[in-house]
Amino acid sequence: MYYAFHCQMKKMLGQLDGWLGKAADDAKARGFDPNVLVESRLAPDQFSFVRQVQAACDTAKLGSSRLTAKDAPSHPDTETTIEELRTRIRSVIAYLEGVSEADYAGAATRVITTPRWEGKVMSGADYFMEHALPNFFFHVTHAYALLRHNGVPVGKRDYLGAQTRREAGS
Amino acid sequence: MYYAFHCQMKKMLGQLDGWLGKAADDAKARGFDPNVLVESRLAPDQFSFVRQVQAACDTAKLGSSRLTAKDAPSHPDTETTIEELRTRIRSVIAYLEGVSEADYAGAATRVITTPRWEGKVMSGADYFMEHALPNFFFHVTHAYALLRHNGVPVGKRDYLGAQTRREAGS
Repeated sequence: MYYAFHCQMKKMLGQLDGWLGKAADDAKARGFDPNVLVESRLAPDQFSFVRQVQAACDTAKLGSSRLTAKDAPSHPDTETTIEELRTRIRSVIAYLEGVSEADYAGAATRVITTPRWEGKVMSGADYFMEHALPNFFFHVTHAYALLRHNGVPVGKRDYLGAQTRREAGS
Repeated sequence: MYYAFHCQMKKMLGQLDGWLGKAADDAKARGFDPNVLVESRLAPDQFSFVRQVQAACDTAKLGSSRLTAKDAPSHPDTETTIEELRTRIRSVIAYLEGVSEADYAGAATRVITTPRWEGKVMSGADYFMEHALPNFFFHVTHAYALLRHNGVPVGKRDYLGAQTRREAGS
């Protein structure tokens, strides 16, 4: 099931990329520089938009990399424009495309740690459920909320993306 | 694994209940009625705080109810105060406590539909991954973002809650 989540995170990054496209179009239509959105915040002591997008990218990338023990590309957090953020998102999507379901074998029992945990560890299962997944949605949703707060015309369908629905009985 | 998510959603609702407690305390300390937060919004055409909390409760409750085919309690969306919202959250947590791992047997292949889907259906697996889970985090995170935007002193630890960490090698 980790791979199903992997695919869902990849899908959500694609949605995020689309919101940034809408933000750029909307800024053009309203006659302002879209890059002013990059430093927008919901609270003065909370991450700005650029940090929310970077963190969404990192939680997806590192969530996959840590559970599969596959090296991930480095991203030095230097983005200052919407276009640079879109390039970063697409770089992470490309990385995730190179990870297969088989790479997740043994993910649940893998021992995970990060420098922030001061020597402590989590199982892959706990790390994914308690840390990577909620953090991913936290940052993706904050990016969405910031755009919505600034008048960008995104809606719930842009958030969820395509749904796998079929006719009843088929 | 659906049950692991069930437990994570139940945990996140407990966190949400705690944020509302902090919001009430903060309003008291700053000398305003905490219930003004109930109608706060990030955008004029987006759900207010009360709707975000109600939707977070419903996505958790209905996500569980639909995947397990167990009846869920009805909540008529009449809350107008922080305390009433906390009561609702606790009611959903109590409902989720009555659902066991065994109740999720066959969840992935269950046929799910809602009146909004105009006769179309989703598999339990697709419904959970593409609809229930992202919607749950969407509304929980918007509730958090609205409190943060209004100066309530919640932080990332309040969002994530307790993490299952252990000493390396233990």
